Amino acid sequence: MVTNRVLATPAEDAFCSIERTLGIVGERWTFLILREALTNGATRFADFVDVLGIAPNILTARLNTLVESGVMEKQEYRENGSRARQSYHPTEAGKQLLVVLGALGQWGDDYIPPKCGVTQSRETTDGHQPLRVGFVENPKDLVDVEDVTFVRLPSHPKYNAA
Amino acid sequence: MVTNRVLATPAEDAFCSIERTLGIVGERWTFLILREALTNGATRFADFVDVLGIAPNILTARLNTLVESGVMEKQEYRENGSRARQSYHPTEAGKQLLVVLGALGQWGDDYIPPKCGVTQSRETTDGHQPLRVGFVENPKDLVDVEDVTFVRLPSHPKYNAA
Repeated sequence: MVTNRVLATPAEDAFCSIERTLGIVGERWTFLILREALTNGATRFADFVDVLGIAPNILTARLNTLVESGVMEKQEYRENGSRARQSYHPTEAGKQLLVVLGALGQWGDDYIPPKCGVTQSRETTDGHQPLRVGFVENPKDLVDVEDVTFVRLPSHPKYNAA
Repeated sequence: MVTNRVLATPAEDAFCSIERTLGIVGERWTFLILREALTNGATRFADFVDVLGIAPNILTARLNTLVESGVMEKQEYRENGSRARQSYHPTEAGKQLLVVLGALGQWGDDYIPPKCGVTQSRETTDGHQPLRVGFVENPKDLVDVEDVTFVRLPSHPKYNAA
């Protein structure tokens, strides 16, 4: 069930695919949750809280929406001596949202670069070739999202963080 | 001046390009205003109100943010017997946000298609070749946004509208 907290039309009823997608990912914080999940490998509730500074009740709500929408899925994990907890992992559909994040990041780099210089690059995972995001006629020209990595550059404040 | 109404960090201070971009376009309604401007040629205040059903005070605020951010620019127009009014036109930077809209629309088509079928396609303007959005290694493989058209399909409720 996709519920709508952003747009006037319930997301599942919108005829426009942009509008339906925003019904899932267009909420406050959701893009940043996806950024952490898709580009930095965050999976645990505490990972998201630590890096985003998001309020736990809002994080719970946004993660639930992403799970209900089929963008993320829950798994159970247990650390020594602790109760079982849930971790959150992008589904195949969720992984494809890297294209949206790439388009947002590229536009920011191109038109509103930070004063300290661009802090992250989008590259092929194996060859470290820089990538652009855009429209193509031939789908064979596309690099699969599985082969794309967002790499922190030295100007990134967490360049040396795990 | 980019002001921030979405994210915890002021948009102009965020080191992350995704976050800075969302500081401009990530607000409620803003994506849909851009959709109308970039894919349907809406330019006048009344165009946006009519098609989106957006409250005029919210529309004013969102258009002002887009103008202040360099995404849209104002022009003056005058109809017979009326006072001068402002129209709103995407800048070069604004036009490049079509890549973000394309990525959002493609994901919605791929993973949450509407019951009535997909309502809009992304095509080359001249040859009507279908387009995909994604990552490429060679920028020469990209189709310029000026050569991209979003085309309403028969399942679109406004298929025959101007």
